[in-house]
Formats: sequence, structure tokens, C-alpha cells
Amino acid sequence: MSSNTLEDLRAKLAAFADERDWDQFHNPKNLAMAVAGEVGELLEHFQWLTPDEAASLPEATRDEVALEAADVLLFLVRLCDKLGIDLAAAAERKLELNAVKYPVGKSRGLATKYDKL
Amino acid sequence: MSSNTLEDLRAKLAAFADERDWDQFHNPKNLAMAVAGEVGELLEHFQWLTPDEAASLPEATRDEVALEAADVLLFLVRLCDKLGIDLAAAAERKLELNAVKYPVGKSRGLATKYDKL
Amino acid sequence: MSSNTLEDLRAKLAAFADERDWDQFHNPKNLAMAVAGEVGELLEHFQWLTPDEAASLPEATRDEVALEAADVLLFLVRLCDKLGIDLAAAAERKLELNAVKYPVGKSRGLATKYDKL
Amino acid sequence: MSSNTLEDLRAKLAAFADERDWDQFHNPKNLAMAVAGEVGELLEHFQWLTPDEAASLPEATRDEVALEAADVLLFLVRLCDKLGIDLAAAAERKLELNAVKYPVGKSRGLATKYDKL
Repeated sequence: MSSNTLEDLRAKLAAFADERDWDQFHNPKNLAMAVAGEVGELLEHFQWLTPDEAASLPEATRDEVALEAADVLLFLVRLCDKLGIDLAAAAERKLELNAVKYPVGKSRGLATKYDKL
Repeated sequence: MSSNTLEDLRAKLAAFADERDWDQFHNPKNLAMAVAGEVGELLEHFQWLTPDEAASLPEATRDEVALEAADVLLFLVRLCDKLGIDLAAAAERKLELNAVKYPVGKSRGLATKYDKL
Repeated sequence: MSSNTLEDLRAKLAAFADERDWDQFHNPKNLAMAVAGEVGELLEHFQWLTPDEAASLPEATRDEVALEAADVLLFLVRLCDKLGIDLAAAAERKLELNAVKYPVGKSRGLATKYDKL
Repeated sequence: MSSNTLEDLRAKLAAFADERDWDQFHNPKNLAMAVAGEVGELLEHFQWLTPDEAASLPEATRDEVALEAADVLLFLVRLCDKLGIDLAAAAERKLELNAVKYPVGKSRGLATKYDKL
């Protein structure tokens, strides 16, 4: 995977919005909706596929999915920037919390939510 | 923002799932749904807030939102991994496409979608 | 509002799918994703609008939103049909539960979730 | 399925909100987000299930799903009310449009979107 960081993306998106005077639209409420809108587009690629079909997308579809996933990421990074959230740090923190909530011994082979383990 | 990369996250998530034998659940169709489920939780924090309130969350709420945003990111990274998509590269590619779709001169100060500019 | 019932819709959708041999695609997992995909399209109409703008949509936009809302409803009715859920009865039951969870005296003028009231 | 209409639901929801002075929160932008938040909860019930498991939910899960589906419907009906949209009429209109977009002869047995048929 490419080596750029979420901080690189954050800075590029901030500059992109600034050049276009888009900060007026990019408040957190709007950006949260934009994330959700893009996720809807992502889902549409998968909704009628069997799990097996979804796991072996034709090249062209996979390219489209890659750009939809990118849209989700871009708005998510932008949302966090406007909220003053360090997304990379939050992801690390969540990984640590998940390791506690889902100890290997209890969760192995199970899709059960932690509060029912 | 912290300096870790999407590739770091990808590798950690793959190891996390592997230790728990979760690959059986982590097919792309399921992961796309999981991304959407987490986005729903993210939205719930904002739905009854005015744009001004959403832009000045209390510290405790902001912490909760940070972890919801992290959940979205973690499942998105995992989805891309299972699809063989380089998410960081896709984000760079999408930024370049957006620069073409939204030239500064035409899009400045407008929330109009590119196909109506 | 028109007087047709959810049961009318359910029956029409079942016939529509049957004529097209679409039951093979209309399993509950797929239909839940389809509901979410349509909601994403609904959101996109509102994401860059201020609350005031969203409350006074131009006629043409309102027509588009009406059809997106219809899409959400159609897949939701179809999902419930395939699950053997009586959606109209569930809505009545939820209204009764909400009346208990949100007593007028405690919830008046507040957007607070019931478990924090 | 129960025989009540969307108009019944609309009127009950309007009275419910009025008694609680909730119109201040129930603007279309907020309600669109609320629909999406509820759909996220709906999805979470299905995300780790195989299509077969999702089609044969245990009774208790099906009850929970019924209430989540009801939540989606209630906010959708409320959204349409605040926008002045006749949801039942829109659903009828969409069914007619779909019959044109997906003629039996062309769409039989296919999940292909109409613009690619």
C-alpha cells in the first residue's frame, strides 16, 4: 500500500477546500452526511452480489469501488479535521480498545459482539 | 496528526483478524455493511444538533465521535485489504480526479456537483 | 396523503419481483443493503444545504427527494415481507414503546435520548 | 399485514412530536440523518450473517429487526410530512416508473440496473 499518511491527506484536503472557498459548506454536520452518502454509493456495488461474487469483482468494478472507498475516506478525514480529531490516533486507540473487548481466547471464531461474549 | 500510515493499519487489522479466525466473517460484502453500520452510529451523534452545535461538540462527545470515526476507518481499511485495493493510492487518484472535476475557477464558492457546473 | 396501505405495496412488490424472477436476489441481507443504498441517495440531496434550505426545497428537488424516499420505502416493505415481519404492526408497536420511553412530562422540548432522560 | 395507512402513521407522528414540542428538531435535514442512523442499526443485525442465516433469523432477532425497520419507517414518514411529500403517492409513482424501467422481457432473472439493460 502507498506510504502516504492520513496527515498528508488532511493537509491536501484542507488546501483543496480553501482554494475553492468550500469551508462554508464543510461543517461537521454536512461532512458526516457526506460520508454517509458516499457509503451508500459503496454499498450499491455489493447489494445484489453473493458473498462469493463480492469477493471476486471484475477489474472495472473494483476500480469503481476503490474510488468510492476513497470518497468515504476523504470526507471522513475532512470531518475529523474540522472537528479537531486526530483520526490516526483515534484508530490506534480503537485498536487497543478492541484488543481488550475481544480477547483472543473468548472471541476466536465468533462474530459475537463484545457485550454478549 | 499521528504519523502512522494506512498500511500500518491494514497490517495490524489483518493480524487482529487472523489471531481471532475472523477472516471467515470478513468478506467484502459483510465488511461493506459493517462500514455502513458504523457510519450510522457516527450520524446519530449529529442528527439533532444544529450546524453550530455540531461544530462545537463537548469534549466527551468529541471523544465518542473520534472512536466512531475510527470504526468507520478500520472497517474501510479492512474492506480494501480484502478486495486488494490500495486505499491510499485510490485516495490520491481521487484527489487528482477531483481537481479536474472541480477547477477552482468554476467551483469557487459553490457546492454544485461537477456534472451541473 | 393517498389512502393505500403498506399491505397494498407489499403485494404489488411481491408480484413485481415474481414476474421478473427477482426473488433470487431479494434475500433479506441484500434488501437491507438496498435500503441503505437508497438512503445514501436521499442524504445526498440534503448534505450541503443549510437546515433552512433543506426545509424549502425547490419543486424539482422535492420531486426527486419524493422518489428517493419512495425507493427507501419500497425496499423496506420488501425486506419486511421476506422476513415475515408485519411492518405496519411493528410501526404501531414502536409508537407505543416510544410513548412509554418519552413521556411528555420528561421529554418536552428535549432531543435527549430516552436512556439519558 | 395490518391495515393502517401511511396517513394514519403520519398523523400520529405529527401529534406525538407536537405534544413534545419536537418540531424544533424535526427539520428535514435532521430527519434525513435520523433515517440514515436507523438504517445503520438495521444493517448491524445482518452484517456478519450469511445470506441463509439472514433469511432465517431467530424469533428474538426478528423482533428486534422489526422494531428497527419500524424506526426507519417512522422517521421516513415524518421526513416526508415535513417536506410536504405524499409518500404513499410517491411509492405508487415509483412503482409505475419501475415497471417502465424494468420491462419483464428485458429484466427477467437479472439484477442489472436499468441503465445497463
